[in-house]
This record gives sequence, structure tokens and C-alpha cells, in this order.
Amino acid sequence: MQVAVVTFDGFNELDSFVASALINRCRKDGLEAFITTPTPGVTSMNGVEVSGQRPLEFVSEADVVLIGSGIKAREVAADDRLLARLPLDPARQLIAAQCSGALVLARLGLLDGMPACTDRTSRPFVEACGVTVLDVPFHTEGNIATAGGCLASQYLATWVIGRTVGLDAARGVLDYVAPVGENEETVERALRAVRSGEAAALR
Amino acid sequence: MQVAVVTFDGFNELDSFVASALINRCRKDGLEAFITTPTPGVTSMNGVEVSGQRPLEFVSEADVVLIGSGIKAREVAADDRLLARLPLDPARQLIAAQCSGALVLARLGLLDGMPACTDRTSRPFVEACGVTVLDVPFHTEGNIATAGGCLASQYLATWVIGRTVGLDAARGVLDYVAPVGENEETVERALRAVRSGEAAALR
Repeated sequence: MQVAVVTFDGFNELDSFVASALINRCRKDGLEAFITTPTPGVTSMNGVEVSGQRPLEFVSEADVVLIGSGIKAREVAADDRLLARLPLDPARQLIAAQCSGALVLARLGLLDGMPACTDRTSRPFVEACGVTVLDVPFHTEGNIATAGGCLASQYLATWVIGRTVGLDAARGVLDYVAPVGENEETVERALRAVRSGEAAALR
Repeated sequence: MQVAVVTFDGFNELDSFVASALINRCRKDGLEAFITTPTPGVTSMNGVEVSGQRPLEFVSEADVVLIGSGIKAREVAADDRLLARLPLDPARQLIAAQCSGALVLARLGLLDGMPACTDRTSRPFVEACGVTVLDVPFHTEGNIATAGGCLASQYLATWVIGRTVGLDAARGVLDYVAPVGENEETVERALRAVRSGEAAALR
């Protein structure tokens, strides 16, 4: 199973790399994440130049697509040619957005009829798309999920791992990356956030 | 004030990017972090190619030096020529290591007489250097700090921001990057970890 971590110019390192690093701890289980970029290289909001591991066209064959966040999200969401390169299919793929990535999902029509999570900066722009923004870090309905707040990217990764490899694998990853001595609370916090974000959709 | 986030080939994205992204939220306060590499480019443990923002020689002029972690840490720690390019000065600089970065500090003689934090994989190798490893995520004495567990990199960043710009700035950064709705607990958890790691040294 392959995960496209869609990463645009001006990206936030926390959003793309926390998710990809956690997911890549499941390589032995056949789950692998790739930094996926619209140009051969992208530069982060802090000036770090990164080479894409996959071109944007990889989203078509990926089993999971995560839309990262960054300081140019509004430009991305307004770029019809770029959006046309994201032919996502929630019937076949797990699709998730981190922070301002929700703007992209909204513009793709993937948040119609469901609320979403995003960061405080992006919130008014996501709301302007007609999407209700929740005051929680994670929300999912069906095959679509959104997370808000940079460090909630660990919850997106937890959801992806849980939905593909399983909850035991997610627990193992969280236990490994947790601050030493905070293992159990880190695992439980992430699983709780994901469970709450699933339960909310069922109410 | 400039922060060198020393990043070797095979680096763990969580360790270098969580710290640098948090610290770079203080640019407006005059604190700035740079991915600092021994070669023009490095490739992460997950195959992501990143261009260094500063050469390794930058550590001499940096006010703060963070040694990142990765799958080649033991090779780095055994490479005398590479170590010679790290002329760190704890009298003048704040010096910190994330996970296996503690091995590098140990080999540089910077952990003599103090215990350290590291990850579970690196632990036996750090202990083999004669350093006591603690079961906590963060420890500091004087101008030297170590953190263990990938996500404890947020505690290293909190310490750096607190020691340079101040605790209010650290609170502001943690509040911004926290998962939505978990702001207060994220701020308090990080400040508590850093305070505990400072207090332990005073006992």
C-alpha cells in the first residue's frame, strides 16, 4: 500500500514529515509513504529544499493521499490547473488533509456535506468554502479525514495506519516515536483523538 | 541568534524537522534555525533528499547547536574526521542532542559527568560510552541538553526557545502547533518536561 504525502511549495515541514515519518515505520508491513510534489523539488516555508520522491501524478495510483499544508495553500486551492492534477477518488482511496490542506479538499468538492478540521489561520478560508470547521484536532467520515493543528499530523498518521495495517501497528509506531517515559499516554492520546473523530461522524 | 540543526545522511525527519520548524516560528524574535549538513545534500532514513541550508562549518558561528538523529549515528560517532568538524563550545553555545545525537555528544566528551536522554535503540551504545541514560524525555545541565524519543524533539525546541527568546515565546509556539483543542495541555506538557529536566540536574 502506497501513501502520497502531497507537498506543495511553501510547505510546513511538520505537516508533511510527521505524517510520512510515522507511516514509514510500517514499511515492514507493506505500507510506504512518499513525498509527492507538483514540481521536481519544493522549498518549505522555512527555506528547506526537498526533492520530491514521486511526481503529482502518483496520486492516481496511491492507496492513500494526504494533502499537506503550507503558506501557499490559498494559491494552490485557487489554481484550477493544479487541482485538475489531483483526480482523487474517495470510493477507492483514503483521503486526508492536514491544516490548510482542507482548503484543497473543499475546492475538490470532497468536503460537501461533512465538517472538517483545520488550523486557525486557514479556518476563515475553509469556512468561506461553505464547510463547517470543528474545534477538534481530527474528524473523519467514510474514507475522508481532516486534522487541524500541526502536531495533529500524528493523528492523521494514526488513522492511516489503523485503516490500512491495523490498530496494533499504530500503537507500535506511536509507542516508538513517543517521548521516552510518555509512551502509554502518547499512544492513548492519539487513539482517543482518532476514535473521537470517528464517533462524531456517527452521531 | 542562529541555530544549527545538524543533520546527517540517514537522518530521522522527526528529529530534525520538528525542532527546526518550531524554532523557526520565532524568526520575528530574531531566532532562526538552519538545516546544517556535512555534505551539500543529505538523504533521510526514508529516502527524502534535502539540501543543507548551511555547511557543517556553520556550527562554529551558531549560538545554538542541535545534533539530530538518524540510522547512521553510530557511523557518525565513529568518524573522527567528521567529529573534528564539530568544534562545539558549551561555554559559549547552547548544545543539544536528539535521540542518537547523544552518541555524538558523548564522543565529543560533552556528556562527561552528566546523564543523558536517548532513544531505546541508541541506549546501549550511549551507555557503552560510560554515560548514564535516564528514563525521561528531557534532561539538561548548564548549556547542554538531551532528549529521547522522536517526539521529544518538541521539548528540545521548547528549551532552546525558552533559553534564548523566553518562556512566553515558547508558550506561543507550542500553542500554535498544538492539535486544535489540545492547546493548553500541549503547552503545559512541554513546559513540564523541560522544567523536570532542569530540576533533576539541581537535585
